[in-house]
Amino acid sequence: MFQTRLKVCAAAVQAHFDTVLGRLDDLPVVQAMGHATNGGKRLRGFLVMETARLHDIPDATSIWAATAIESLHAYSLVHDDLPCMDDDDLRRGQPTVHKKWDEATAVLAGDALQTLSFELVTDPRAGTGEVRADLAQSLAIASGAQGMVLGQALDIAAETAKTPLTLNQITHLQQGKTGALIAWSAMAGARLAQADTTALRDYSHALGLAFQIADDVLDVEGDAETVGKATGKDADAGKATFVSLLGLDEAKRRANELVESASDALSVYGEDAEVLRQAAQFVVARKS
Amino acid sequence: MFQTRLKVCAAAVQAHFDTVLGRLDDLPVVQAMGHATNGGKRLRGFLVMETARLHDIPDATSIWAATAIESLHAYSLVHDDLPCMDDDDLRRGQPTVHKKWDEATAVLAGDALQTLSFELVTDPRAGTGEVRADLAQSLAIASGAQGMVLGQALDIAAETAKTPLTLNQITHLQQGKTGALIAWSAMAGARLAQADTTALRDYSHALGLAFQIADDVLDVEGDAETVGKATGKDADAGKATFVSLLGLDEAKRRANELVESASDALSVYGEDAEVLRQAAQFVVARKS
Repeated sequence: MFQTRLKVCAAAVQAHFDTVLGRLDDLPVVQAMGHATNGGKRLRGFLVMETARLHDIPDATSIWAATAIESLHAYSLVHDDLPCMDDDDLRRGQPTVHKKWDEATAVLAGDALQTLSFELVTDPRAGTGEVRADLAQSLAIASGAQGMVLGQALDIAAETAKTPLTLNQITHLQQGKTGALIAWSAMAGARLAQADTTALRDYSHALGLAFQIADDVLDVEGDAETVGKATGKDADAGKATFVSLLGLDEAKRRANELVESASDALSVYGEDAEVLRQAAQFVVARKS
Repeated sequence: MFQTRLKVCAAAVQAHFDTVLGRLDDLPVVQAMGHATNGGKRLRGFLVMETARLHDIPDATSIWAATAIESLHAYSLVHDDLPCMDDDDLRRGQPTVHKKWDEATAVLAGDALQTLSFELVTDPRAGTGEVRADLAQSLAIASGAQGMVLGQALDIAAETAKTPLTLNQITHLQQGKTGALIAWSAMAGARLAQADTTALRDYSHALGLAFQIADDVLDVEGDAETVGKATGKDADAGKATFVSLLGLDEAKRRANELVESASDALSVYGEDAEVLRQAAQFVVARKS
């Protein structure tokens, strides 16, 4: 059920990107935007569309916010991969944008993908004025210097710090770096319906943390070919992670505990939320 | 009259940045955001506040959109100055962000400034939901791959092109690179009031082109100390500009002609638009 719905959402997001990017001039920067938004699990887009469905918002409406969050996620990956940041050559099994084109194109394509995310989320077809303004405002807060960029800045600061981060600091860092966008995605359905976001917020916070712990586990246990990007980088760099701080077994135990919490948070939605519960299980079981 | 109002707007924008950035964690990336948004003429913010005033929108409302456009402008400068782009060491007479900090901080600070611009423009105090959604949507279109980024991409493509750009191509490039944000700024007042944007659109298009021609003249006639950034770069790089294509005298004549057109476009506003007419004169007379 979850796997089917994930595939349907991924295909819908891809089709939407094709339409939107197809309208732009055929320049290297636009080709790079297409490359950067191609593939991936589309977990964030799925969370938008599935939580929207839970609130009786049609796919034709939620696709705008779903494509917006995938565009924002893609921008963050393009810039993260730059030589001055993580310096990665491979992403989703493909050369990164600055390898396939050059750094200037990667900077510009990332910039334009961030802009595109705000263009999509404020499209007149994405909701009423009030809803679109609320979506854009919350997306900006989640992705800026109080959210994702804060997490990235803390990550850079940690690299030059004299002592490794504590568990509390790692948790704070990850709540920004990956948690904030996942939280936004899973709360988008309630926002689109102008409904109470409490249950989805609790779900998304547990989900986001479980996602990051699973990422750290994959960095240790996965091989680059399956994961689609370089692995073992954190250990090589001597970076503190959930695995280095908790050990592999305890990290996995906590991730599973968080999956339980995420599922429990959805009780108010009853059986309708089954796909979202399966999504939480998938997040810790995934191999890439 | 114009100079006073420009200074009042610049001070209001600076105070707003101080408040907004003061709320964030004291990290290098946040300090870099402060550095990048400090100083400058604030012409775009002024255009927002002055066209808003023309439509009886109070400064306390328009300050959000004014600070938003200055944040977006600052992001574009930080990324433009990067070694992989224009590779500039000096901006507004100060070291650029990647010189004062490093490239990673410059990429992140630019990213966060773009995000901040959308956070500001969708703030609940910036207007009704409909107005904020419209401001954010039009800002995204003006600054993305159909606007500013398109202009930058065309600029990069021109550097490796075998033949220099024609006057039409330069005009198209500049309408994106600098014209789109100036147009958004000067139309913001009508958008804030949900009024007809036609007169301000005509004004802003003439103003934007006059601004760019004046920039090209400054690159030839100005010295780095007064202008606050390196000059003579375009000529050194053999780039086609309005001056190289038209000659200095004809470029100046056209700029003045555009100032006339800009003023004429404001006739519907009568005497109330006098400060905006002076702004158009200032744009071609400025020394930095």
